[in-house]
Amino acid sequence: MHFLDVNMKTGVCKFEPVPPELEPWGGRGLTARLLLSQINPTCYPLGPSNILIMATGVLAGSNLSGTDQISVGGKSPLTGGIKESNSGGTASRRMAALGIKAVIVRDLAPPDRTYILEVGGGTAALVERPDLKGLKTHLTAARLLKEYGSRASVACVGPAGEMGMAAAGVSFTDREGNPNRVAARGGLGAVMGRKGLKAVVFKESERRKTTPPSPRLREILAKIVAELEAHPATGTLFRRFGTAYMVQACNKLGGMPVNNFSRGELATADKISGERLEQVITERGGEGEVGHICQPGCIVRCSNIFPDQDGEAVTGPVEYETIALMGTNLGLDDFDRIAVLNRACNELGLDTIETGGAIGVLMESGRLAFGDYEGILRVLEEIEQGTILGRVVGNGAGITGKVLGVERVPVVKNQTISAYDPRAIKGTGVTFCTTPMGGDHTAGLTIAAKIDHHKPEGQAAVSRHVQRIRACFDNLGFCSFHLAAFLKENNMDLLAEFYSEFTGRPCDAKGLFDLGKEVINTEREFNRRAGFNEAHDRLPEFFTREPLPPHNLVFDVPDSELDSLHDAD
Amino acid sequence: MHFLDVNMKTGVCKFEPVPPELEPWGGRGLTARLLLSQINPTCYPLGPSNILIMATGVLAGSNLSGTDQISVGGKSPLTGGIKESNSGGTASRRMAALGIKAVIVRDLAPPDRTYILEVGGGTAALVERPDLKGLKTHLTAARLLKEYGSRASVACVGPAGEMGMAAAGVSFTDREGNPNRVAARGGLGAVMGRKGLKAVVFKESERRKTTPPSPRLREILAKIVAELEAHPATGTLFRRFGTAYMVQACNKLGGMPVNNFSRGELATADKISGERLEQVITERGGEGEVGHICQPGCIVRCSNIFPDQDGEAVTGPVEYETIALMGTNLGLDDFDRIAVLNRACNELGLDTIETGGAIGVLMESGRLAFGDYEGILRVLEEIEQGTILGRVVGNGAGITGKVLGVERVPVVKNQTISAYDPRAIKGTGVTFCTTPMGGDHTAGLTIAAKIDHHKPEGQAAVSRHVQRIRACFDNLGFCSFHLAAFLKENNMDLLAEFYSEFTGRPCDAKGLFDLGKEVINTEREFNRRAGFNEAHDRLPEFFTREPLPPHNLVFDVPDSELDSLHDAD
Repeated sequence: MHFLDVNMKTGVCKFEPVPPELEPWGGRGLTARLLLSQINPTCYPLGPSNILIMATGVLAGSNLSGTDQISVGGKSPLTGGIKESNSGGTASRRMAALGIKAVIVRDLAPPDRTYILEVGGGTAALVERPDLKGLKTHLTAARLLKEYGSRASVACVGPAGEMGMAAAGVSFTDREGNPNRVAARGGLGAVMGRKGLKAVVFKESERRKTTPPSPRLREILAKIVAELEAHPATGTLFRRFGTAYMVQACNKLGGMPVNNFSRGELATADKISGERLEQVITERGGEGEVGHICQPGCIVRCSNIFPDQDGEAVTGPVEYETIALMGTNLGLDDFDRIAVLNRACNELGLDTIETGGAIGVLMESGRLAFGDYEGILRVLEEIEQGTILGRVVGNGAGITGKVLGVERVPVVKNQTISAYDPRAIKGTGVTFCTTPMGGDHTAGLTIAAKIDHHKPEGQAAVSRHVQRIRACFDNLGFCSFHLAAFLKENNMDLLAEFYSEFTGRPCDAKGLFDLGKEVINTEREFNRRAGFNEAHDRLPEFFTREPLPPHNLVFDVPDSELDSLHDAD
Repeated sequence: MHFLDVNMKTGVCKFEPVPPELEPWGGRGLTARLLLSQINPTCYPLGPSNILIMATGVLAGSNLSGTDQISVGGKSPLTGGIKESNSGGTASRRMAALGIKAVIVRDLAPPDRTYILEVGGGTAALVERPDLKGLKTHLTAARLLKEYGSRASVACVGPAGEMGMAAAGVSFTDREGNPNRVAARGGLGAVMGRKGLKAVVFKESERRKTTPPSPRLREILAKIVAELEAHPATGTLFRRFGTAYMVQACNKLGGMPVNNFSRGELATADKISGERLEQVITERGGEGEVGHICQPGCIVRCSNIFPDQDGEAVTGPVEYETIALMGTNLGLDDFDRIAVLNRACNELGLDTIETGGAIGVLMESGRLAFGDYEGILRVLEEIEQGTILGRVVGNGAGITGKVLGVERVPVVKNQTISAYDPRAIKGTGVTFCTTPMGGDHTAGLTIAAKIDHHKPEGQAAVSRHVQRIRACFDNLGFCSFHLAAFLKENNMDLLAEFYSEFTGRPCDAKGLFDLGKEVINTEREFNRRAGFNEAHDRLPEFFTREPLPPHNLVFDVPDSELDSLHDAD
């Protein structure tokens, strides 16, 4: 396996063998290692000293369901700390087939130049493409797939990334060529865009990696598939309701973000539940699809395609975080409107969580009413046009709050927290505080834990465990929606067996888990050098002061438990 | 002496005796002690948990020239760290006469209410004044002085402070009742404004403190006055040229900020030099004045009143920092224009350094041309109107840079550095990095040191010494423009004698100096708890990468010297 090292300034693209000591690391683990060793943690995130990494996980190309997540990494222009954001789509499997473990992009192209990186079997080149400048993600992907063939895989940024906005993500194409799989969080799209790199095209490989799996590997694989099929979440729930099954779960706990995190429960939640989503998509038919697959071989199939009244695809997938942050958080409870906003964000290459968080703060300031759907569309237009207001909102909730003088800004490390009010779902609040990733549920969602989510007791231990297992999955490139089936201890043994057989490096379940722990420690060291200490591991003051209706809870996990969380074995 | 404790929420004003352990502390030293012990360093700076302090120095009311500086302190909404900003004017002497060592303002008034605090001899009350809402500083002061008599002293915020902008300062009236003395830095005007406190009126006291100075005190005072008169800076330079004498000094070193810190030298610097300023003011006559006095009994007399062509006062004083940040940094080299911008900032209650820094960044982004005077006036109007652009710029250079995606943002700890390019005047660059105050020359200007300012060697030691002596002065409430005369060691002994005699607490020169050291340590502890570590003690990357014409210098003091600076004895 090789690294593809690309210098935007000189135009030089080099393939270099992966050093043996980096072999156990992939995805988030690899981005952490590379960032800590290769860049100055105090560098300007949108400048020449930052690097952008796209890394496959350790299990990329193994044919195990969900192991083709692609990790994007860099110093975040949003948090100022280390950032990894991963996504489905076809890029990781294509990279594995091309023998590329990671693409590392350095320096900046000359100002105002727009390039794509064309990657084939052992070849890579930067190609200037002024025609793609400012193009939305769907047009960009469509144009490139037309040129390179529909079996190519595209990673690209939209106008938001090109303009350097901190809410911009990196979009990846799925099996149908739609760039709707987004490594959304932390502004990595801005890092890519400001480097002058509009897109990466992974061409269909002539020399596919064709080592057939060993009989032993196939045997373990079959066992894992059986376990995934047997578990209610991975076998049924995701497939039917997508991540939207979380709507009812969160609403029951009083932890939905409603009107900029001012309430935790919505009376009309059944209008936007997972059950309702399945029903609407099924009833409308046409291009709509439930149980859609984003990467080859996925069993979980959490994705969907949402059709309008006429059955024409609006966007896909409609996910819980978008339903909440761009929906209930902004006073909306209507799939059709949320789907249109979702599409608009995808086309601009924007993180729906950060954008929703920022618009919620704008609403809190009184400059836009909660529920003003047309007003939200206008704000998204302003983002597209790069007006001052557009740039404020496009840089996220933290900046928006500072500019408008709003206290109630739901961020940790300047990143909008995901759709779990930390006062009602306290373990996830602990994760928001203590993960090096900033307010981000993907670093350790605790909602599946058998614990009273309203009580502060025991949340730190739950969060720690989930953070580590998530980091372990992120190192493997293993989609976390598979995680539910691995909370059963024997199944982690099974995963370790699969890992050992596939990599040729024997490892038990504890060993896998320890890799996750080490990933977090590496990231924490980066953040320490970037200027973080325990004072950053806190929720905004208002979450600890302002009771959340209807349960009137505040966040009350003691600071001491946050500060000692990562110290425990 | 008493503290006046004011609660904006309950309306309760209480006088409380100063605890004996706080007696050695005044001004910046007192604000540091109070902030560290009374507020949570991670609190929201514009929320109810922050406090705003106005503190007299230890030597307030001593009749020694320049010891009536007033310190304003709080957690800064600009830096997120501890902040003290001090100013001349009449407030401190009036407070001393009223027996008040400090005013401490807590919590927030109900939303959208506007109050003034009326302080007399042993009395204090909050009075609702909706008529003052949104009023510029000059109108505010004029109205209050008309009501309370011209011998009252007013501290107020302008519209920028009321709107919570992080470039807002607190303005104090001088002997003529003009609110042109500004505790400008760090956004403390926003803290005051957001508390709903538009102004504080210190009424003329009926029960003046009349303890006559001892013969011994008068004797030492005479000696100090003689030393101040004898020194070229304190006896002549400031009186004639004001702080503008720095223009030629900085320009010769190639350290003037020109066009957003992109050059260090201006060919037309003689158009805006101190010498030229004296000449213009003298020639125009009328209301113009050189050697103007801002606080009673000042010998240095650095202030001035700048008249227009017809001799009518435009603003005063025109100071070096404004000439540079609102002038050369924005492509202007014309006193008349700079004076008009200065007045506009004063009226809005804006820090000219932060505002100039932010407009420089706006120009760097290409949205306004360098030298576009009319455009700058329009931006200031937008600040007044609270438009989105106005709020962006009014929140300082750091936010402006983030919103517009500009790398070349001259801030440390998010605060615009003062008018000494750190590449050419490296010791002051060291101060910008290492003072807990953020980019702020008042914490330790090194330009008077006999050292090669272009070389990295020895700068850390110079900065450390000046930071400590400045902190010592700030604790005493002693205007730092007197400092030049005290670099002579014997004169520090004289000051220590004066201190001992005035306070009744014997102290030698080393003891005074140690107080300064302890002030800084207290502030550093606050900042550590607020989330700062050594990564924040850095200049923006571009200062270390981009050579500054004409001397093509970069900032190259090693990080290790920055990190160990405060450790030395």
